[in-house]
Amino acid sequence: MHVELEVPPNREQEQNYGNPVQTPYANVAFSVARTDPLGPFPNETTMQWNCMYANAGGAFDMGTGVFTAPVGGTYYFCWNGQKRSNTNDMALYLEINGAGQAGIYEDNWNGGGGIFTPTLNPGNAQSDMVVHLYPGDEVHLRLNDEAYPYSTSFGHYTAFTGFLLFADFQI
Amino acid sequence: MHVELEVPPNREQEQNYGNPVQTPYANVAFSVARTDPLGPFPNETTMQWNCMYANAGGAFDMGTGVFTAPVGGTYYFCWNGQKRSNTNDMALYLEINGAGQAGIYEDNWNGGGGIFTPTLNPGNAQSDMVVHLYPGDEVHLRLNDEAYPYSTSFGHYTAFTGFLLFADFQI
Amino acid sequence: MHVELEVPPNREQEQNYGNPVQTPYANVAFSVARTDPLGPFPNETTMQWNCMYANAGGAFDMGTGVFTAPVGGTYYFCWNGQKRSNTNDMALYLEINGAGQAGIYEDNWNGGGGIFTPTLNPGNAQSDMVVHLYPGDEVHLRLNDEAYPYSTSFGHYTAFTGFLLFADFQI
Repeated sequence: MHVELEVPPNREQEQNYGNPVQTPYANVAFSVARTDPLGPFPNETTMQWNCMYANAGGAFDMGTGVFTAPVGGTYYFCWNGQKRSNTNDMALYLEINGAGQAGIYEDNWNGGGGIFTPTLNPGNAQSDMVVHLYPGDEVHLRLNDEAYPYSTSFGHYTAFTGFLLFADFQI
Repeated sequence: MHVELEVPPNREQEQNYGNPVQTPYANVAFSVARTDPLGPFPNETTMQWNCMYANAGGAFDMGTGVFTAPVGGTYYFCWNGQKRSNTNDMALYLEINGAGQAGIYEDNWNGGGGIFTPTLNPGNAQSDMVVHLYPGDEVHLRLNDEAYPYSTSFGHYTAFTGFLLFADFQI
Repeated sequence: MHVELEVPPNREQEQNYGNPVQTPYANVAFSVARTDPLGPFPNETTMQWNCMYANAGGAFDMGTGVFTAPVGGTYYFCWNGQKRSNTNDMALYLEINGAGQAGIYEDNWNGGGGIFTPTLNPGNAQSDMVVHLYPGDEVHLRLNDEAYPYSTSFGHYTAFTGFLLFADFQI
């Protein structure tokens, strides 16, 4: 899969190399975002990213959208997204080894007065979790069918971040 | 108090034991969520949780909903919630030793055109903070009176996370 | 510039000193918030803060609203804000050395039924990122022109947090 990467302003070096500084094995942190909307697709799929803020340890694969735990340990994950469509909602769920754990959701309907009408209003949501992973556990965000997370080149309103809090064994 | 715990998909071992790996004393991280709505109650109360992602260090008490700092240090806390009611708002405030610090809030009203009408639209909010705690300091989320945070078994839209950034003294 | 600082409940010591405990050089973490709304201003400006939860390492300057990286390393930043105006939106973008990276945005319009009408509804947004910084890199939030982030003394709905994940070199 070919991924078009957008370079964040003034961050060319980090963009090209993920993290230009050699880090010890247990220094694991990634942060990716969208610079434009993605979807909607008829079926659920792994969320794809086209902007990388950081990838210390190199454990996040931009080609697949999957983070693979390089070391057993306790990790923090955080993701956020924006809805800005009157036809499609925004729904991104974190999966570990294919099993859904938690998600964010914003509707494309406005229910004022009990009458549901479509709205173009932006709506933002965020979730996060701390979870223990074994080496090789795979983590990604699932983009639900017909969902349409919005983003722009300056706003990066849909993003996914994770980092190791502490490894099971001191490195 | 008896708490019904829901097992996150494929995470049975973590669920049962919090964190299956022995961690040094200063490795402190918890993450809990709701798998269904809670409230509304006539008076404010300590927010209760029924899903545990992690509890490294064992400092979060699922029976009370209270985190007790096991070591003096600088901690990060993050919480998020969803409103999805046309009669009740969503209001969760972080308290340290009973004193409110910051909160999240989403209204159950839709004010389009200056006319406030109830809406079932989901609305999401999130807040976080870094704060220094002394050993024994107690942290919980306060569920406001008449508030109704929404959540589902697949979405876990209301959650509470915290972890130690660094202890006052190296362990 | 004179900044009126509000003391968070029961946190007088932390408020006055940032972090009362001596921390090693590489222990860097700040967390600031608004206790009232700010803006709108006719031109974009650096977001200003009047409540400090923590400032371990002393790298955040409350007088300017700027964080200066004291050490090269990989940092986490998180910010959130609330819109609660029917005339002004909420727009806060993180800048590194003056270059915008990512932002949060909530509109002051309600588009139900394709008709855009002003609304006083609260709307919340959050974003975060992990990014590598060199020593001396400056990070702040940009408050867009005419934006009006809402906050209260009890809610602190608009806030900015950052901490060092790991330094480039072990200290």
